Amino acid sequence: MKDVATAAGVALKTVSRVVNGEPGVHPATAERVRAAIDRLGYSRNESARVLRRGRTATIGLVIEDVADPFYAGLSRAVEEVVIAHDCLLLSGSSGEEPGRERELVETFCARRVDGLIIVPAGDDHTYLRPELEAGTKVAFADRPPGAGLAADTVLADNAGGAGQAVRHLLEHGHHRIAFLGDAPGIFTAAERHRGYRDALGGLYDARLVAMRPPAPETMRADLERMFALDRPPTALFTGNGRCTVAALRALAGQRPVALVGFDDFELADLLRPGVTVVVQDPAWMGRVAAELLFRRLRGDVGPPEHIQLPVRLVARGSGELPP
Amino acid sequence: MKDVATAAGVALKTVSRVVNGEPGVHPATAERVRAAIDRLGYSRNESARVLRRGRTATIGLVIEDVADPFYAGLSRAVEEVVIAHDCLLLSGSSGEEPGRERELVETFCARRVDGLIIVPAGDDHTYLRPELEAGTKVAFADRPPGAGLAADTVLADNAGGAGQAVRHLLEHGHHRIAFLGDAPGIFTAAERHRGYRDALGGLYDARLVAMRPPAPETMRADLERMFALDRPPTALFTGNGRCTVAALRALAGQRPVALVGFDDFELADLLRPGVTVVVQDPAWMGRVAAELLFRRLRGDVGPPEHIQLPVRLVARGSGELPP
Repeated sequence: MKDVATAAGVALKTVSRVVNGEPGVHPATAERVRAAIDRLGYSRNESARVLRRGRTATIGLVIEDVADPFYAGLSRAVEEVVIAHDCLLLSGSSGEEPGRERELVETFCARRVDGLIIVPAGDDHTYLRPELEAGTKVAFADRPPGAGLAADTVLADNAGGAGQAVRHLLEHGHHRIAFLGDAPGIFTAAERHRGYRDALGGLYDARLVAMRPPAPETMRADLERMFALDRPPTALFTGNGRCTVAALRALAGQRPVALVGFDDFELADLLRPGVTVVVQDPAWMGRVAAELLFRRLRGDVGPPEHIQLPVRLVARGSGELPP
Repeated sequence: MKDVATAAGVALKTVSRVVNGEPGVHPATAERVRAAIDRLGYSRNESARVLRRGRTATIGLVIEDVADPFYAGLSRAVEEVVIAHDCLLLSGSSGEEPGRERELVETFCARRVDGLIIVPAGDDHTYLRPELEAGTKVAFADRPPGAGLAADTVLADNAGGAGQAVRHLLEHGHHRIAFLGDAPGIFTAAERHRGYRDALGGLYDARLVAMRPPAPETMRADLERMFALDRPPTALFTGNGRCTVAALRALAGQRPVALVGFDDFELADLLRPGVTVVVQDPAWMGRVAAELLFRRLRGDVGPPEHIQLPVRLVARGSGELPP
């Protein structure tokens, strides 16, 4: 439309009026615009037009922390889809605080976003009901909404991926496999713990489980406690990228211990041994959630979808160490 | 204000009307609001109020790529400052394309952002003049605006940091030091090359310089070419985090070569040898640029500021290897 406006020597608004058949344009000007359209082969972008009518062409994204590479990758993918739809992205980090998640969502809604993509920090999303009823579209990514709210959701196969990690370590001869995960209140951490527990069956030992926000000091303390047990762990399964990095740092300078981490991270292949990981693709997750949201904005009123993205184990050395 | 509205049982808009002395509120209701304010000890946030009058309380951020850890860190810091000022952040990645930078900026301006923080991809920003004249505030971060536009700018000491890296390698006995940097059209890459060249003086040899967007294949080709020279390099200075990672990957499995990188990155300390780097702080840069922008929004009309943030060398092993 910008090119048409330039070619016809009129304002963008005038082109829009002509295209949408609105009044207030001099017939000669309208003719000039139509000629420019023919000349440039301009065809109205239906998707953009539908979005624009009575809408703000703005999408809100709430993630946990954009400085976390997983969410940075997800953000960039969402941004790509949003821009491809001629929309803008408002974004904010909840810092894992339910209050801040809600505040961000409410602020975005006050700005009349057309849709929201939420990586929830809290587990009560009934506050969103009035917005949904008012027509705002919402998709959840990485974690589902709390009970009582049905909405499109895109998750990774967290439990399945944890099962893959544990079975891989079992196959390499380990029977004492520790789980070092994020806080148990976090959906992905709880799901990965569930997959770990199920895959271990009778070998499960609660003393080999530590779940809290990953930090170097606490990670070190947890590992020391476990290694001091009568039957210490011979392998570790770390529950997300930050847990993996914290564990690697806590173990630095010691004899390598078998380790599989959930989430890939840059340079995992350059460490010695290379770090075996269960890989999920944050960009794929962001893209799927955003595409789903735009499908809703284009009018899809089917029942909420629950999409689970597969994950895969990449062996690089650390997960293949013997007990 | 939300708490006051809840306590008084009125809409947020009503509280706002009472606080700002606007008409249209029933005296009894106004009294109830004032009582709630007294009860809760609410005091009007002057900074927020100034920003709100005739403004949209929205800031636009254009970076190169949010999936790059440097820009993710900068984004998060900008976001913190923006939220602390009760504003919202629109953000977008230019992908190093000047056209996309301009498109993002123009879209943000069409949404009437109060201010912009720009990591420029292009070198012509005269298109911003009408916006600046209309009162939009702009701060540049990481790279300055193109010629002909005076604006607040926050940069790292790129040339100085490159000088530190080169002198460190010279002190460890190297005389053949290669520079592997990003495309020469990028300000930071050009500045780091300048600092490298100045510090080397008579030892400078153009055959030891390769500047292009970092990618594994081209990095491998550049290194092969240099190592095949009569007098090959004994040390490498890599021009940013992505160049460092590409070089480390290209060198993996070979005998370690002395290396200093510009920009720190996660796990640099866990590689063997640990990677010596020149550290700049993206969060600091984001914070300084955002604070500067809000100072302008609060009415500071002084001449444009040019802030240069210091950088420092962190020795971890790779930069201390002998020739």
